[in-house]
Amino acid sequence: DFLSALDEVQPAFGVSEEELQQCVQNPIIYYSPRVEVILGDGKLYVDQVRNSDKTPVVSVLLHGPSGSGKTALAASIALSSEFPFIKLISPENMVGFSESAKISAINKVFSDSYKSPLSIIVVDNIERILDWVPIGPRFSNAVLQTLMVLLKKRPPKDRRLLILSTTNEKSVLENMDMSDCFNSELYISNIADLQSISHVLDDSQLFSPEEKREALERLRISGIDQRISIGIKKLMMVIEMSRQDVDKVDKFVNTLMGL
Amino acid sequence: DFLSALDEVQPAFGVSEEELQQCVQNPIIYYSPRVEVILGDGKLYVDQVRNSDKTPVVSVLLHGPSGSGKTALAASIALSSEFPFIKLISPENMVGFSESAKISAINKVFSDSYKSPLSIIVVDNIERILDWVPIGPRFSNAVLQTLMVLLKKRPPKDRRLLILSTTNEKSVLENMDMSDCFNSELYISNIADLQSISHVLDDSQLFSPEEKREALERLRISGIDQRISIGIKKLMMVIEMSRQDVDKVDKFVNTLMGL
Amino acid sequence: DFLSALDEVQPAFGVSEEELQQCVQNPIIYYSPRVEVILGDGKLYVDQVRNSDKTPVVSVLLHGPSGSGKTALAASIALSSEFPFIKLISPENMVGFSESAKISAINKVFSDSYKSPLSIIVVDNIERILDWVPIGPRFSNAVLQTLMVLLKKRPPKDRRLLILSTTNEKSVLENMDMSDCFNSELYISNIADLQSISHVLDDSQLFSPEEKREALERLRISGIDQRISIGIKKLMMVIEMSRQDVDKVDKFVNTLMGL
Amino acid sequence: DFLSALDEVQPAFGVSEEELQQCVQNPIIYYSPRVEVILGDGKLYVDQVRNSDKTPVVSVLLHGPSGSGKTALAASIALSSEFPFIKLISPENMVGFSESAKISAINKVFSDSYKSPLSIIVVDNIERILDWVPIGPRFSNAVLQTLMVLLKKRPPKDRRLLILSTTNEKSVLENMDMSDCFNSELYISNIADLQSISHVLDDSQLFSPEEKREALERLRISGIDQRISIGIKKLMMVIEMSRQDVDKVDKFVNTLMGL
Amino acid sequence: DFLSALDEVQPAFGVSEEELQQCVQNPIIYYSPRVEVILGDGKLYVDQVRNSDKTPVVSVLLHGPSGSGKTALAASIALSSEFPFIKLISPENMVGFSESAKISAINKVFSDSYKSPLSIIVVDNIERILDWVPIGPRFSNAVLQTLMVLLKKRPPKDRRLLILSTTNEKSVLENMDMSDCFNSELYISNIADLQSISHVLDDSQLFSPEEKREALERLRISGIDQRISIGIKKLMMVIEMSRQDVDKVDKFVNTLMGL
Amino acid sequence: DFLSALDEVQPAFGVSEEELQQCVQNPIIYYSPRVEVILGDGKLYVDQVRNSDKTPVVSVLLHGPSGSGKTALAASIALSSEFPFIKLISPENMVGFSESAKISAINKVFSDSYKSPLSIIVVDNIERILDWVPIGPRFSNAVLQTLMVLLKKRPPKDRRLLILSTTNEKSVLENMDMSDCFNSELYISNIADLQSISHVLDDSQLFSPEEKREALERLRISGIDQRISIGIKKLMMVIEMSRQDVDKVDKFVNTLMGL
Ligand SMILES: Nc1ncnc2c1ncn2[C@@H]1O[C@H](COP(=O)(O)OP(=O)(O)OP(=O)(O)O)[C@@H](O)[C@H]1O
Ligand SMILES: Nc1ncnc2c1ncn2[C@@H]1O[C@H](COP(=O)(O)OP(=O)(O)OP(=O)(O)O)[C@@H](O)[C@H]1O
Ligand SMILES: Nc1ncnc2c1ncn2[C@@H]1O[C@H](COP(=O)(O)OP(=O)(O)OP(=O)(O)O)[C@@H](O)[C@H]1O
Ligand SMILES: Nc1ncnc2c1ncn2[C@@H]1O[C@H](COP(=O)(O)OP(=O)(O)OP(=O)(O)O)[C@@H](O)[C@H]1O
Ligand SMILES: Nc1ncnc2c1ncn2[C@@H]1O[C@H](COP(=O)(O)OP(=O)(O)OP(=O)(O)O)[C@@H](O)[C@H]1O
Ligand SMILES: Nc1ncnc2c1ncn2[C@@H]1O[C@H](COP(=O)(O)OP(=O)(O)OP(=O)(O)O)[C@@H](O)[C@H]1O
Ligand SMILES: [Mg+2]
Ligand SMILES: [Mg+2]
Ligand SMILES: [Mg+2]
Ligand SMILES: [Mg+2]
Ligand SMILES: [Mg+2]
Ligand SMILES: [Mg+2]
Repeated sequence: DFLSALDEVQPAFGVSEEELQQCVQNPIIYYSPRVEVILGDGKLYVDQVRNSDKTPVVSVLLHGPSGSGKTALAASIALSSEFPFIKLISPENMVGFSESAKISAINKVFSDSYKSPLSIIVVDNIERILDWVPIGPRFSNAVLQTLMVLLKKRPPKDRRLLILSTTNEKSVLENMDMSDCFNSELYISNIADLQSISHVLDDSQLFSPEEKREALERLRISGIDQRISIGIKKLMMVIEMSRQDVDKVDKFVNTLMGL
Repeated sequence: DFLSALDEVQPAFGVSEEELQQCVQNPIIYYSPRVEVILGDGKLYVDQVRNSDKTPVVSVLLHGPSGSGKTALAASIALSSEFPFIKLISPENMVGFSESAKISAINKVFSDSYKSPLSIIVVDNIERILDWVPIGPRFSNAVLQTLMVLLKKRPPKDRRLLILSTTNEKSVLENMDMSDCFNSELYISNIADLQSISHVLDDSQLFSPEEKREALERLRISGIDQRISIGIKKLMMVIEMSRQDVDKVDKFVNTLMGL
Repeated sequence: DFLSALDEVQPAFGVSEEELQQCVQNPIIYYSPRVEVILGDGKLYVDQVRNSDKTPVVSVLLHGPSGSGKTALAASIALSSEFPFIKLISPENMVGFSESAKISAINKVFSDSYKSPLSIIVVDNIERILDWVPIGPRFSNAVLQTLMVLLKKRPPKDRRLLILSTTNEKSVLENMDMSDCFNSELYISNIADLQSISHVLDDSQLFSPEEKREALERLRISGIDQRISIGIKKLMMVIEMSRQDVDKVDKFVNTLMGL
Repeated sequence: DFLSALDEVQPAFGVSEEELQQCVQNPIIYYSPRVEVILGDGKLYVDQVRNSDKTPVVSVLLHGPSGSGKTALAASIALSSEFPFIKLISPENMVGFSESAKISAINKVFSDSYKSPLSIIVVDNIERILDWVPIGPRFSNAVLQTLMVLLKKRPPKDRRLLILSTTNEKSVLENMDMSDCFNSELYISNIADLQSISHVLDDSQLFSPEEKREALERLRISGIDQRISIGIKKLMMVIEMSRQDVDKVDKFVNTLMGL
Repeated sequence: DFLSALDEVQPAFGVSEEELQQCVQNPIIYYSPRVEVILGDGKLYVDQVRNSDKTPVVSVLLHGPSGSGKTALAASIALSSEFPFIKLISPENMVGFSESAKISAINKVFSDSYKSPLSIIVVDNIERILDWVPIGPRFSNAVLQTLMVLLKKRPPKDRRLLILSTTNEKSVLENMDMSDCFNSELYISNIADLQSISHVLDDSQLFSPEEKREALERLRISGIDQRISIGIKKLMMVIEMSRQDVDKVDKFVNTLMGL
Repeated sequence: DFLSALDEVQPAFGVSEEELQQCVQNPIIYYSPRVEVILGDGKLYVDQVRNSDKTPVVSVLLHGPSGSGKTALAASIALSSEFPFIKLISPENMVGFSESAKISAINKVFSDSYKSPLSIIVVDNIERILDWVPIGPRFSNAVLQTLMVLLKKRPPKDRRLLILSTTNEKSVLENMDMSDCFNSELYISNIADLQSISHVLDDSQLFSPEEKREALERLRISGIDQRISIGIKKLMMVIEMSRQDVDKVDKFVNTLMGL
């Protein structure tokens, strides 16, 4: 019956592929082996939900510094699952929503997912969904409680659900007792070595081979390679800024060193 | 007249058996003698309500760490009472409810119970029903006050009620003066010995006898058996994750050791 | 004119005898001379209101530990006054009321009382009426202010009012400046001697004389009689629990010793 | 024109004499010279408002311990002014009012007063009008701000206003910057000598001359006359309680000594 | 075009002269040279707005102790400007207004001013307009933000605006970052020398020359002239109180010495 | 397609040029080389958005002391971009708006910008838009969250957006985690040298050459040139005030020295 339900499922509540595609506008760059490891772990969770009927709901938290690539990786894992129901819950889609409108929207995505035998929900940037601000601190407790309950709620019989959430503020979630609601965690780190930077530079076609060699050499000499830590998102911003400058190498090196 | 009332009672306000069955989706595993002790204590409370007319309302708090099996055990005790009125009050059923809607819903379950001579109400995960969050801290005082009054309110003449509540946060309830509202407590502990784990592994059919021996041996050698403490719920999640892996023993042992 | 008003008064706003009777469902047990002293003091206040026209409003606070019998004693005093207007204000009757609905309800009872020459209002469990919780702390200031004003408000000419209030949290009321609003206080203590327990046991018919002797002997030997302190309400709960057990004496003694 | 306005004034907005009379239900007892001093000072303020057109609004704060007689004295001063407009603003008249209803009611009394050439407003028990509670602390800032502005607002030309306010909590008003809003203050003290008590006893006719002598003698011997401090209101309550007792002298002396 | 606009302006939004006149009910007494200096500085600001088109909005804060004469001086400066638009924003005119009604009223005065080529707005007693109370502290942030924006907002082309604000609580405004919104400040001090008091006494005609000499002499002897500090408003209240007394000199001297 | 979209764009949602022109009412004075550097950096960001399709949204924070010229410079950069969509979000345009009206207005500007291939939004005075006040502290979290999401939200395909924000309170934004939302920062400093002041004086034609020499000489002698720090806005206010005075040099020098 699980398989027959899988057959019957209609794409009515649809896969929001387009929306998720936008989260990976720029293609994933395999700048380090770690990238493949994360995508592999993601696949394991997808398989557990697909295969095991004893754990009908599995929730995973992707956490790491701002701009390290969490959203793009969560979207990638979700899109490659080919599950019939894949949806994104993100702050961008709920700008200006009242607290209760937010709760309804979130609740609806979960309810809809219960109609598909296999579903993935990406809950992006949880601290922003919660209107978190460290001054106070303040946040929407009503939205928090809704998420905490939905993250653990069992789907009805023969329905299975994988939840991929992202956050920059894991310690905040811990202080809210929210981290108890996740079954597993994946840490997404910043880029911290010149080899990864070199890989990204190749991909971006910012420099000629000579320029690239010069840039990396200057970074190495400055000793910055010992302490660099930059998210893939920020690195791409620096590359594009440098592209406008007359002396691209200088701009690139100086900006990285000024971080 | 008590007995005649018992005869007349209509299943109108019904027994929410299905809902409670879902709380014990996976069958109770008797992994340790402690499991039977708890179910036995539960039966004693059921009997007191059934037999003594001097204490028409009895309330019990099942508390213990997250995932230790509180909900499943409370549901088990309730279902085996065969009382004509058995109902579940749980956060899952009240997602997105306003504070006043929550209070109405809770109040209705209690009012309905007063129409049956013998009733059981399971109040699951009290801290979540109260929208508790340690930052602040914040919670719904209106819901709290409602529960505190209803936990002690005497049913009308010839009506008797057993209330089984669960919580992960007993100390929070104490700080709220709520623990005064319970007549008794039952502590549900984590699994903390290899024998219980062995029992659960048998039940789950994850390993061949050989694999199991190897897994337990490795755990014993690592010395982890001295400090392990894992809820039955989490243990079952680890078992299902391991089932996806190529090297199940390795995954199982490493995950337990990484906790 | 006072006497004629007394004659004319109509039981329209009624005596809520039934409601108050429920507060003393189990008959008052004269387990210690202190019980009679309290009932005697209560009668003195009733007389002052009946006889003296210089103090038309008298308010008394019955305070003591949870379950010590405050509600039952206040109800007893009120019921034996035979005043034409006797009403109960209790949290049980206002579950789920909004703050303003609560205030209206309270205000109405006082307004109604002003129509009777002699009235008693029992305000039960003030801290619960105030939605008091120590975390925060939080409470309904609007309800508090209403009570503080009504406790001191003079009835119209030729109307007299006795207010009997109960609380477990006298120090909280003091911190709120509310204790200034009471003219007198009565302390209701826990049971703290074996003789009183013996008296209650007799009344409950739990044991045969032999069993009772054994139970009390074991308590005495354990030295617990030096430090016991149990409310009459809890003692009766322990007695009823023990009644279900195979070894009643053992259960009773062990439970008392485990407190 | 001031005098003609005085002639024309209509008792439309009336003198709430009855209401104020109720505040001095029991006649003022001249138990000490201090009582006359206070009434004399009160008359001086009445005269200033009546005679000087340079200070069209004068506000006085009567403060002192709970039950020291503030309300009765303020009402006395107001009633003996014979001004055409005299009104009472008191918490008793605003039980259950919303914040904005309170503000309207207060505002209306002041607006009405501006229509009379000579007015007195008694603002009784300011801290209760403000819904003050020391836990938090909490109070109605909107009501406070309204009072602060109205206490200083100049009446229109040829209108003059005396405001008599009472409070038990002068230091609270100071912390709110409210005491700046008063032009003068009168301190109403507790009774602190046996002579004043003797005076009040005479007036109350509780004792025969012999009983009185005995009672005072026992108080003197106990040394309590060195430390006694009791409000006139509480003293009258003690007298009425003693009146019910078989041994009135004993009850009276013991109650005073137990304070 | 600026001059032609000046010609065309209609007194539609009017000059609230009457209202402002009331703020200086008693004529300004030139009790010290400092009074002229302040009025002179005020004139300079009026001229800057009249003449310079590079600073179309100028805002000045008059601050000083309670009763030092701030409101009367601000009103004086405004009235002598003869600008076509002069308006008062004061707490007295907004008693009982909701927060949003206050904001609308304030906003309207500013909007109206933008229709006149030359305008003055007197914002009296800012801390009271903000509902400031030091307990908490509490205040209306919405009103504060409105004022902060309007104090700096440029009028449309060819419109110029002078804003005169008063406050007793300059340090509060600083803590709110509001003092940044003013271009200049004027400090209004208390009276602190006998010569100024003598000047005010002359003006008030309280004493005969002989009485005055006696009063000042007694103040001098007492040494109080070294530490006196009294607002002009309070001084006038003391004078009027003394006027009622039989011994005016005594009352006057004693009151000043008792401050 | 990007270029064709650029052609098609309609000025429907318009360029609010007039509004922005008002922000630079007085022409930019090139009082120091730093001014050109800032305008040059601004041009680089404009170019990046115009040319690079990998970073469709770029956000820059202009921060510095009050009155240092942030708004005028942001408006200058925006106006010289000649992008088809340029809009200002400023507190002046939202006076008296409710929180939700503010959010709608902000949201609408961003939505409209997504219809133009190239857009600039100037978000002026962020702390005022957020209703920030340091007492509490208080601010509108809902507006903050809206801005935080919109600052990072990707425009739809082939749409690009530059956001120029200004603030006096960079550290506050940091405490709110908001500074993470900006890709770059530009610091706008106060004037801190006599040469810049000289430049501004020339431009303002306040002094004759002789007067100017005298004024600068006096400032130099006083040693104030070592510690001066004044925003261009305040400097222009001082110049206009001095213009009204009889002795302009004296007023100018004294005012600067009194800061
Ligand atoms: N290996 C990679 N992993 C992640 N993102 C990558 C990788 N290679 C390229 N990218 C690109 O880098 C960007 C990462 O940005 P993304 O929004 O996913 O980061 P984030 O951690 O979610 O940021 P934020 O903390 O702001 O939410 C995306 O544009 C993505 O397409
Ligand atoms: N002996 C047992 N006791 C309790 N649960 C058991 C037992 N054996 C198996 N189970 C299964 O283990 C799971 C226990 O999960 P349950 O939700 O009851 O834990 P919980 O303590 O309520 O968790 P939470 O803290 O998340 O509320 C259930 O799926 C239940 O069917
Ligand atoms: N001497 C007694 N005094 C009071 N109650 C007695 C006495 N004897 C028997 N009882 C019974 O004991 C119980 C006392 O419970 P009651 O609700 O009055 O306690 P309480 O102090 O009000 O408790 P709580 O703190 O929960 O409000 C009642 O059932 C009452 O009938
Ligand atoms: N000399 C007196 N001064 C004041 N009250 C007197 C005096 N003599 C008799 N009384 C009576 O004493 C009582 C004083 O009570 P009153 O309510 O005025 O006190 P209070 O200080 O306002 O009390 P509270 O603090 O509760 O408001 C009144 O009944 C009044 O009639
Ligand atoms: N030289 C003077 N300066 C100011 N006020 C004067 C002067 N001479 C006489 N007055 C009178 O003194 C009074 C000053 O009161 P005003 O209300 O202006 O003081 P204020 O500082 O605004 O008081 P508050 O702090 O209560 O707002 C007015 O009645 C005014 O007419
Ligand atoms: N080089 C310059 N840079 C900036 N502003 C200049 C410059 N030269 C002249 N100005 C003028 O100086 C004034 C600067 O004021 P502006 O409002 O931009 O400052 P601001 O830093 O935004 O102030 P605030 O902190 O109050 O928001 C404007 O009138 C502007 O026209
Ligand atoms: Mg992200
Ligand atoms: Mg549970
Ligand atoms: Mg009770
Ligand atoms: Mg009073
Ligand atoms: Mg003033
Ligand atoms: Mg600016």
